[in-house]
Amino acid sequence: MFRILPKDEGFFDLFEHMAATLVEAATRLDEFLTTYTDLANRADQIHNIEHSGDNLTREAISKLHRTFITPFDRDALHDLTCRLDDVLDRIDEAAARMVLYRIPNPTEDARLMAKVLVKAATKIQETLPLLRDMKQKQLILNRCLDIQALEAEGDRIERHGLAALFEGSLEAIEIIKWKDVYADLEEAMDRCADVANVIESIVIRHA
Amino acid sequence: MFRILPKDEGFFDLFEHMAATLVEAATRLDEFLTTYTDLANRADQIHNIEHSGDNLTREAISKLHRTFITPFDRDALHDLTCRLDDVLDRIDEAAARMVLYRIPNPTEDARLMAKVLVKAATKIQETLPLLRDMKQKQLILNRCLDIQALEAEGDRIERHGLAALFEGSLEAIEIIKWKDVYADLEEAMDRCADVANVIESIVIRHA
Amino acid sequence: MFRILPKDEGFFDLFEHMAATLVEAATRLDEFLTTYTDLANRADQIHNIEHSGDNLTREAISKLHRTFITPFDRDALHDLTCRLDDVLDRIDEAAARMVLYRIPNPTEDARLMAKVLVKAATKIQETLPLLRDMKQKQLILNRCLDIQALEAEGDRIERHGLAALFEGSLEAIEIIKWKDVYADLEEAMDRCADVANVIESIVIRHA
Repeated sequence: MFRILPKDEGFFDLFEHMAATLVEAATRLDEFLTTYTDLANRADQIHNIEHSGDNLTREAISKLHRTFITPFDRDALHDLTCRLDDVLDRIDEAAARMVLYRIPNPTEDARLMAKVLVKAATKIQETLPLLRDMKQKQLILNRCLDIQALEAEGDRIERHGLAALFEGSLEAIEIIKWKDVYADLEEAMDRCADVANVIESIVIRHA
Repeated sequence: MFRILPKDEGFFDLFEHMAATLVEAATRLDEFLTTYTDLANRADQIHNIEHSGDNLTREAISKLHRTFITPFDRDALHDLTCRLDDVLDRIDEAAARMVLYRIPNPTEDARLMAKVLVKAATKIQETLPLLRDMKQKQLILNRCLDIQALEAEGDRIERHGLAALFEGSLEAIEIIKWKDVYADLEEAMDRCADVANVIESIVIRHA
Repeated sequence: MFRILPKDEGFFDLFEHMAATLVEAATRLDEFLTTYTDLANRADQIHNIEHSGDNLTREAISKLHRTFITPFDRDALHDLTCRLDDVLDRIDEAAARMVLYRIPNPTEDARLMAKVLVKAATKIQETLPLLRDMKQKQLILNRCLDIQALEAEGDRIERHGLAALFEGSLEAIEIIKWKDVYADLEEAMDRCADVANVIESIVIRHA
């Protein structure tokens, strides 16, 4: 048995900081959709959060480059960093797109998807600190399953949303716009499942 | 030279079981498109197959976590598990979407794509057992090329299908629906190519 | 400290050849969009370039399989090969799609995206040779950041292009077509960022 992570626990601080950033962005997206007022400002706020996430990503990559750890672990940490950043990008994109497309009102399904996203981000935030000592591997794997189940829930809501688009009397152009927004939200959930996959893979490698 | 896989050959049983599940799902999708009757029931059957694939995936991941093998190989096996699961998800999604979108008739191109998918799934099923002893590496790599060639064939059919959508007199909304179905079928083929990539990578790592 | 790459420097020749192929394809796509004449022939030329890229990819994979190097590095080189091939595929797809969809005139945003793609391909071409001796790690990481910044620039142009589609008086069917072309161009840029990620990961593993 070997320690999987470097003594320098600064990495954990960075990952946990990224997870907190993720929860904040998801929460702001939920508010954006719930209130649906002051959209340009709110989208800018989300973009600023995404930007601070970029800085954390760059810091983590630079730290990986400078710190001595085993190459294999380094690789998993690089993956984890990139996947967390992917989720943030998608959240930013969803908000920006609703402004860009001048969407007048959010659908209930979009709101529900944002709420599932907050749950998944929170679950990621609760799970990452468990990697610090790896004492509760089964618990970590169970949390990964929870995140994957949330992703499946997001898919079900998206399907419902899509069916509703086609069953209504929407113009084709409005359908095109909404499909893109749903795709952004669903992709954000997919990227959360990717984060869970990387965590799962870290636990499995060090079983 | 070292054995790449654990003595516990249960992993191969699981992967081969997953491949059989994949062939069954692809075959059912082909029937779904050929007969195009009793759609809701047939889509449910495909969903049940996908669900049994999820259970195999979970079993494989739990086994990876509990079994002693080298970390590196563990990682490749985790990848292989996830990529096989991805193909099943896409097949399920294609059938579900045709029901959800109330598509009245399948196109000939959709039928052709499903047939290519059956071929790719069958090729995966024939290739996985060769990983058991790794004695025929060149044969495995050739089969991976075959799967990648099938993926390219799927792309060509999709392009033909897309051109036909725009050359016809379809309403924009019908075009939107069909593009999603073609995208599901093409993604299923892409994920088969990903499976081939992982197999290729396992062979290359242990050259 | 260990050498990360095999003595047989033929791998570098292959990667650099692939990067040159990539720059050529991107340059031809830029010309395709700038002149916008003789489209079918120009798309065929791009397809031939993509095809020669496929041959290089196959050669690299076969070489990886035959050459003795450490398994870990082999894995990274396999990744790099596949990601370079992905970019070429997307460039080919963008040109083929514009012919297939009989798009009468390119937009200014599509032209700008192709120019960013040429920049990213050129940056990849300039960066790969630095992997030969790994003496300038910080420079390599900086170039990866440059490629990621170009990808973000491509995203901004795509957003502008999308907004313009919806603000104009285009028919839904024309919007659908253009969204696909923009998606091809943006995906090509995304795959360039993936190449940068793999290069980053190679440098980080061997810090």
